Amino acid sequence: MRISELSRRSGVPNATIKYYLREGLLPPGRATAATQAEYDETHLRRLRLIRALTGVRGLSVASAKQVLDAMTEHRGDTHELLGIAFGIRPPDGGTPAGDEGEGEGEALAEANPEAAALVDAMGWSVSARNPARQVIDETLRTLRSLDVEYGWEALLPYAELAERTARHDLDNLETVTDPLEKAERAVLLTFLLEPALMALRRLAQENESTARHGGDGHTPARP
Amino acid sequence: MRISELSRRSGVPNATIKYYLREGLLPPGRATAATQAEYDETHLRRLRLIRALTGVRGLSVASAKQVLDAMTEHRGDTHELLGIAFGIRPPDGGTPAGDEGEGEGEALAEANPEAAALVDAMGWSVSARNPARQVIDETLRTLRSLDVEYGWEALLPYAELAERTARHDLDNLETVTDPLEKAERAVLLTFLLEPALMALRRLAQENESTARHGGDGHTPARP
Repeated sequence: MRISELSRRSGVPNATIKYYLREGLLPPGRATAATQAEYDETHLRRLRLIRALTGVRGLSVASAKQVLDAMTEHRGDTHELLGIAFGIRPPDGGTPAGDEGEGEGEALAEANPEAAALVDAMGWSVSARNPARQVIDETLRTLRSLDVEYGWEALLPYAELAERTARHDLDNLETVTDPLEKAERAVLLTFLLEPALMALRRLAQENESTARHGGDGHTPARP
Repeated sequence: MRISELSRRSGVPNATIKYYLREGLLPPGRATAATQAEYDETHLRRLRLIRALTGVRGLSVASAKQVLDAMTEHRGDTHELLGIAFGIRPPDGGTPAGDEGEGEGEALAEANPEAAALVDAMGWSVSARNPARQVIDETLRTLRSLDVEYGWEALLPYAELAERTARHDLDNLETVTDPLEKAERAVLLTFLLEPALMALRRLAQENESTARHGGDGHTPARP
């Protein structure tokens, strides 16, 4: 297809596609004339992935390029690919999600003792560089600053539910065999599902609150 | 305490506290002289709640005032209070989270058929106005636009986990007896825990990915 059709089908403006081509995020099409090229389904898919990385995940175009390059390079290694897709491992020497360098990253485990204790208690095998560690310690610090005494032990029931959630996440990826497509889907499901998972929690909270405290004409959830 | 100590203990600048006093978000202190007033622990707690609402949840000062006023007004009704705290019910006639008016809000259930089907399948009792409904349908639409065929049925396992999460959330509130404090804690735990819950999912994803795909020197999670 021509660039105009690629634009129409992806919803990405012509000028933006040309920018991605110049920056090397999108591989060049097959030249059909001096100023014309043909694009195919792989370009369309790549374009959607770029939009998911830059839009939903909020990566810069340069960081998105690093992730995409790394994904192409580690084609055969599912574990490595998923690490990159989940934002755990920095694409070769680049900055990982959270902008920590390799050395700094290693310190994440030490700098966040509550996350470390939680990971340990769960028996999880998690890289010292995983930036999610920091979120755990920061959240607990914030809660304590608001007089809510909440230690990592209080997160254990949530961690067990997160373990089951992650199992569903990985199950969702098992059906995909092509490693690159698998990594692509991991990015999509990890980042795009986040708001929906939090929305499910809100819906379930309302239901549970109604069931426990009832009142004002609502029917309790469990009759 | 004087306003300067209130500022020091809360970390909120003097000028900001005076602004909250002028806008009526913070009740006035006990006047001790023409230009001096005494503040107490209730002011400190209220100040922290204002910061949680405007900071973490991103409400405008006017919206935060509506929520706080409604919380004071519905003191006795835990169900109503939690509804306001969870952002489900608009504080009397005001705009609910998501800025839908009453009429528009009722249409949320109809406008989001996939959320409605999910709520129905789960047997949940959820208001037609709950703004989380929209997030569900939007997410599924986005995934489909990226060729990920994902219907509301695929969310069912996540909904079951959300149900258990909500049960832990409400359990966390049972220990608090004062209704206003309960609503305050609901706001804090709902909004402040969100990033931590998503961080737990990322940590668990890495662990699960390592367990399934192993490789590069990592020890599998389950030996």
